[in-house]
Amino acid sequence: MNILITNGIILPMNVADDSPKYFTGHLAIEGNRIAFVSSNKADADNFLANHKENCKVIDATGQIVMPGLINTHTHVAMSLLRGISDDVPLMEWLNEHIWPVEGKMGYDEVLTGARLGTLEMLKGGTTTFVDMYPYEEAVAEAAETAGIRAYVSPCSMDFRMAHFEEDWRAVQKRFSNSELVSMLIGPHAIYTCSPENMQRSIELSEELNTGIHIHHAETKDEENTVRERYGVNPTEYLNNVGMLKRPVLAAHCVCMSDNDIKIFAENNVSVAYNAQSNMKLASGIAPVAKMIDAGINVTIGTDGASSNNDLDMWDEMRTASLLQKVSTLNPCVLPAYQILQMATVNGAKAIGKEGELGILAENALADVILVDFEKPHLYPHTNIISELVYSCHASDVNTVIVNGNIVVENRSCTTMDESKVCSDAQNTIDRLLNQ
Amino acid sequence: MNILITNGIILPMNVADDSPKYFTGHLAIEGNRIAFVSSNKADADNFLANHKENCKVIDATGQIVMPGLINTHTHVAMSLLRGISDDVPLMEWLNEHIWPVEGKMGYDEVLTGARLGTLEMLKGGTTTFVDMYPYEEAVAEAAETAGIRAYVSPCSMDFRMAHFEEDWRAVQKRFSNSELVSMLIGPHAIYTCSPENMQRSIELSEELNTGIHIHHAETKDEENTVRERYGVNPTEYLNNVGMLKRPVLAAHCVCMSDNDIKIFAENNVSVAYNAQSNMKLASGIAPVAKMIDAGINVTIGTDGASSNNDLDMWDEMRTASLLQKVSTLNPCVLPAYQILQMATVNGAKAIGKEGELGILAENALADVILVDFEKPHLYPHTNIISELVYSCHASDVNTVIVNGNIVVENRSCTTMDESKVCSDAQNTIDRLLNQ
Repeated sequence: MNILITNGIILPMNVADDSPKYFTGHLAIEGNRIAFVSSNKADADNFLANHKENCKVIDATGQIVMPGLINTHTHVAMSLLRGISDDVPLMEWLNEHIWPVEGKMGYDEVLTGARLGTLEMLKGGTTTFVDMYPYEEAVAEAAETAGIRAYVSPCSMDFRMAHFEEDWRAVQKRFSNSELVSMLIGPHAIYTCSPENMQRSIELSEELNTGIHIHHAETKDEENTVRERYGVNPTEYLNNVGMLKRPVLAAHCVCMSDNDIKIFAENNVSVAYNAQSNMKLASGIAPVAKMIDAGINVTIGTDGASSNNDLDMWDEMRTASLLQKVSTLNPCVLPAYQILQMATVNGAKAIGKEGELGILAENALADVILVDFEKPHLYPHTNIISELVYSCHASDVNTVIVNGNIVVENRSCTTMDESKVCSDAQNTIDRLLNQ
Repeated sequence: MNILITNGIILPMNVADDSPKYFTGHLAIEGNRIAFVSSNKADADNFLANHKENCKVIDATGQIVMPGLINTHTHVAMSLLRGISDDVPLMEWLNEHIWPVEGKMGYDEVLTGARLGTLEMLKGGTTTFVDMYPYEEAVAEAAETAGIRAYVSPCSMDFRMAHFEEDWRAVQKRFSNSELVSMLIGPHAIYTCSPENMQRSIELSEELNTGIHIHHAETKDEENTVRERYGVNPTEYLNNVGMLKRPVLAAHCVCMSDNDIKIFAENNVSVAYNAQSNMKLASGIAPVAKMIDAGINVTIGTDGASSNNDLDMWDEMRTASLLQKVSTLNPCVLPAYQILQMATVNGAKAIGKEGELGILAENALADVILVDFEKPHLYPHTNIISELVYSCHASDVNTVIVNGNIVVENRSCTTMDESKVCSDAQNTIDRLLNQ
């Protein structure tokens, strides 16, 4: 199908634009690619004339037309665990609540949780997510049926390397021709992967020509553990074992010295900033303003819903900015347009899709969202960039297109039975908690 | 009219409850008071039998029924200035953007801004707000027609004492019999009110038997100014001039020493915590966890929309908790139920309405909201308290009742023409910015 979006406020997020550029205009989609973005009404009329037999027209009056958001770090299946434990110390949270339930989760439970999480993300305008979990084959299945773009990272941990090897092979076999699913290699973290298993991740990344997605320097405890075990800090360790020669997306990065930041910048590591999770678990504040100054490609991730407690990129964008402003005591850092770049073009760069995702441009992949600006909390309209970052909510997203397919229309998901997804999740967590 | 709400999950927020209590049940409203809250179906049936000629029945299946939220510090008319300036240093923000526009605002512009802000608040489940601004008569007018409960604080500042005296007299004269509008005295801040004008506020507070609402210790610069001028810090100054003998609601309270906290606790000062504004303007982090430990009544405010950038109490509640957790490195502080208390019962206490507002109980004022829990981002349901604080959004509020009147029904405001309120705001700010 072809799609013509007319009369919207187009926010293209061009890679070269350092300052916001937007205009009233039109966007056309042929197949899974953007045919054009134009302020010229004649372009829209011509497109319609040439495709009139098979063209869906969406009137975007009063709406912002922008690239779909890219969530660069989550565990989508953990949506199943939303609310099972909050406001407790980290180790109690893990040992007594999260891990016991996760231990009972297999393919079917991960699939159920991933269906819920992908539904929430799509309805909030997230069109691509980077995941890490066991049973990523199930996450990939959920993403395919939801119609969302997924970078799944089968998770390597010492105590289940056999599962890891099965999982990545399964993903590779089943989804290698998928237009929506791609794979990263996911060594969980330095403290959960032996040096041999870290090497295995590096080898696989080379062999399969994929990037690496890893939890990194999330807490002071982690830093202490790594230092005791290896005599260096986490960033120095990753550098020493050669992992930074590969394309790496490092999540959290709370405990980063100036030298660590330099190492990451020199090695073109991308960082997933997870402000709300770091706040809720009291992990600390990542020195993101410094990382950006050093030239690091910083992106935005929600982390899993059990530590956030949602997969809402709008909320995350706002908090990402506010937390840096207050922690540096500088209201100018992470201004609104930079935050939007982090959630779009920077996210695309982190997964090797610069120029193809996170942008509205001719020939880019057609991942497009429409945000309804006719809401009291978004009035008056004086600066749409500020409004998007500081006032907008997931519920303001009206229409979502991924890979040229309309997956959310008028706030309803077209690919999933929403109430069934919710009730399946409820039944599954009830069963797991009562087992 | 009488209202019967059936089959909801009732969260009464009883003052005596230290831990969350909720149950499936029914709530009835006669006139502007709550007639009963009950889990007994027979009570609902009897009420309906006795009021069948004049009873609106609301089926609350799948919804949380809870007290309306109390926003204890805002400048509602500043919704007009949303987005006119962001991400700049504080003094540039004030001098070059906010103050020049505010200087052009009179009664009509404040009324227009207040209509927009009250509309946003009502739709998000805020049923009472505490305001401070010039032309509070206009804010009171907006609140009356919107059907929201308002505590307006005519704002005393050295450079316009005549306006202050006119404003409080006008509010007193016009709204003294209002069921929705009450008045506090609003000395703007120590650094903007001379000792004489501070005394005038104290006198008026005594004479009119009202509380005092003041900006307090918001920034380090303010502390330095007060110390240079008076040789003491802001809290010591308030104590020295005798203001703390009156009921005081102090907003911000970022720069508070342990001794300041002791002074506030001893004098039963209530604090409005404005986490998002303090973050966005890079003012700092109020030591709220310490204040609560000291027994201070801490409440939640959004501040104005030009420094937030919205009047969303859900967002504010979540950030309020997360910011304390990360700043104390303790994930246990400000747990979800305590946050809900801050936004309801504590807010009521701050305005002298403990037991009458912020609570669902027989004879309490009928300010009730219904939150729709049948949304993917709120599934599965394992802990409704966590869901309300960490996952809920303003857009999940479905029905709002203030003083026994339904002011929002199925997400639509019944008291205002939403699109007219929005377009009036747009026209007004366009005119002010182009003058």
